[in-house]
Amino acid sequence: MKSDLDFLMQERGFDAIVVMGEARENPALRYLVGGSRVSDGIVIKKRGETPVLLCNAMERDEAVKSGLRVVTTNDFDFYRLVKEAGSVFEGELQMFANVLKHFEVRGTVGFYGREDPGKAYVMLRRLGEMLPAITVSGEPEPTIFDFAFATKDAGEIALIRSVAERTNKVMAEMVEFVRGHAVVQNRLVKAKGDPLTVGDVKRFVLGRLLDSDLEEAGDTIFAIGRDAGVPHSRGEDGDILELGKSIVFDLYPRGAGGGYYHDMTRTFCLGFAPGEVQQTYEQVIEAFDASVAALEVGETGKTYQSLVCDIFEGYGHPTPRSRPGTEEGYVHSLGHGVGLEVHAEPRLSAVGSDPLQPGHVFTIEPGLYYPERGFGVRIEDTFYVDEQGDFHSLSTYPKDLIITLE
Amino acid sequence: MKSDLDFLMQERGFDAIVVMGEARENPALRYLVGGSRVSDGIVIKKRGETPVLLCNAMERDEAVKSGLRVVTTNDFDFYRLVKEAGSVFEGELQMFANVLKHFEVRGTVGFYGREDPGKAYVMLRRLGEMLPAITVSGEPEPTIFDFAFATKDAGEIALIRSVAERTNKVMAEMVEFVRGHAVVQNRLVKAKGDPLTVGDVKRFVLGRLLDSDLEEAGDTIFAIGRDAGVPHSRGEDGDILELGKSIVFDLYPRGAGGGYYHDMTRTFCLGFAPGEVQQTYEQVIEAFDASVAALEVGETGKTYQSLVCDIFEGYGHPTPRSRPGTEEGYVHSLGHGVGLEVHAEPRLSAVGSDPLQPGHVFTIEPGLYYPERGFGVRIEDTFYVDEQGDFHSLSTYPKDLIITLE
Repeated sequence: MKSDLDFLMQERGFDAIVVMGEARENPALRYLVGGSRVSDGIVIKKRGETPVLLCNAMERDEAVKSGLRVVTTNDFDFYRLVKEAGSVFEGELQMFANVLKHFEVRGTVGFYGREDPGKAYVMLRRLGEMLPAITVSGEPEPTIFDFAFATKDAGEIALIRSVAERTNKVMAEMVEFVRGHAVVQNRLVKAKGDPLTVGDVKRFVLGRLLDSDLEEAGDTIFAIGRDAGVPHSRGEDGDILELGKSIVFDLYPRGAGGGYYHDMTRTFCLGFAPGEVQQTYEQVIEAFDASVAALEVGETGKTYQSLVCDIFEGYGHPTPRSRPGTEEGYVHSLGHGVGLEVHAEPRLSAVGSDPLQPGHVFTIEPGLYYPERGFGVRIEDTFYVDEQGDFHSLSTYPKDLIITLE
Repeated sequence: MKSDLDFLMQERGFDAIVVMGEARENPALRYLVGGSRVSDGIVIKKRGETPVLLCNAMERDEAVKSGLRVVTTNDFDFYRLVKEAGSVFEGELQMFANVLKHFEVRGTVGFYGREDPGKAYVMLRRLGEMLPAITVSGEPEPTIFDFAFATKDAGEIALIRSVAERTNKVMAEMVEFVRGHAVVQNRLVKAKGDPLTVGDVKRFVLGRLLDSDLEEAGDTIFAIGRDAGVPHSRGEDGDILELGKSIVFDLYPRGAGGGYYHDMTRTFCLGFAPGEVQQTYEQVIEAFDASVAALEVGETGKTYQSLVCDIFEGYGHPTPRSRPGTEEGYVHSLGHGVGLEVHAEPRLSAVGSDPLQPGHVFTIEPGLYYPERGFGVRIEDTFYVDEQGDFHSLSTYPKDLIITLE
């Protein structure tokens, strides 16, 4: 959590960190500015000190909502610097250097955020030359932010819980929407007799997310038949909702305006389930339940990936362990952390070596895929670990395979 | 346009360019991969040659839709490299170096896209050390992409026209939605008698955008009264739609999934307009019409900013020219280019020195703001310049100030 940043900085030898860029799709910046909706900014945090937010003077009112100490481009004479330098970039660079000097930033400084990589390279090299007292540095993932993100504080859990409640409600509304359609022959049809399509369902879901103050930042997966057997398929808008085919519905919205995610998947069959889908579904549920029963603070993610491989291999399915690169059977990892990014630490994968701990929020999502046989099954809940080390699912919508039709 | 890239590369001394990162909010990558919806990738373009797209092997099918030559992480043994190096980052770096060597990239290479700046700095420095034949480089804005973006080809104009048509329709639907409400005393009310709020209108608009395959990437502005007088205010959800107050409705969606933008603004008064709002509105229309009448290929953006300052100053309004930093009167620039980003080249501002030319798509948006007097007015159309050098507005929705109520 945020309070770990000083420790993480010390561990990696950073005397200060700087987070920069536009706020959109910039989790490190969003994390530090909290509820403030500045459109961009630079946050400077020296180890052991409260961060400072440098914002555009026009966004001052928004910036103060961050609770950070706020300084503006006007405080550092940005427009004069641009004019003197004859270039916005040179003005920015000079202001950046002045701000770092003003706050007496020295030593090794890690830079984070979102930027054009070539511009970042040129800018940070220049900044290092202008400021001999600092050593410019950076990190590939997992960065100190990835580690800080992994454990949520009470305020973050409350936000995630709220997104989860609304997501479960949209899942329920989707099922009711589908059930509200008549069956003609082997398919669902709309009022005028046209078949109900995946596109119709997705548009309905998007509207419900919108009304729930949620947003779809990645593409919702609503994949039927063969597509359900391809974990990366989002489903084709023109596909028709036929009875008896497996539908993988993976819904992972975030709070509107770039908030926290909640990630859940259900597999459905309309009306009835063919024998092999039903059997596969039961094996996935078995793997899901076994994983959940085994959850324990201090245990590493790879333990659970291994447990699920044991179960699936026992039923004769290929897994990434028994057949690396398989596109049939179990083809992915068991889960991942969820926060301001949908895929985050901790990883419940073959290489997941961080022990589970209070504050973690992560998914458990076993699945079995047989595209050539025209089906796939995945079940996914998001869990959090409370301060006592107990595990709670936030994905309360039932896991029934069959959607009964009138 | 894209076909200018080779010339722009030559002009700036780039032997090759590399565009990298996640596709989301990464206009340079989106530009090069066209209609393909890969989630991330690396595009390598040597001067005078067709670009190559390196993608995740799982996204191969999606990548080929780009029309580029496609190679995958599997072709370059990514997983073996990660395993040998014992780190994803080292594996990525080695693969990156191998790909650049494989395609015989040499000389000065400009890097673009979206990345964590510290990671980019570390990665590009390492890459430069691994590949003595290349000189790593980058650019601040305006980059060669900003220049290429500025002129649209026929395919891009068609996409923008389609977004524009749908945006105009949503504007019309918003007006009909508002008009569908009853007036009680000085405000609009909903069926149960509660007042209609800005939040209600925004939710309606979001729903209509969704149904039109558009997305709100920035916050739609629907600001009433004092907020209409603050160009950066998005409007408060709880504000009530009262009669006779100016409403600035700035609608700038893009095609769903990260497409082209269309940007337009109308100012409305419900039922009637107070005298000073009506008069201000007429002055804004005069400035708008005068700018449009003066549009000419070869003329620079600053000419039009200056023209509008002349008109507004003639009516006694402060402008950024007569009173730099003013927050009353005319407080911003006249317009900006529109494309995969909502604010792009060409700039119709005091520093806009690029001559207008065929293929340009840009806004004209004069406005006058008096927050302390509780109102603001802005009128904005998006224009494009055809091959003959004629200017056409894409924002066909009427500019009437008053929304008549039953």
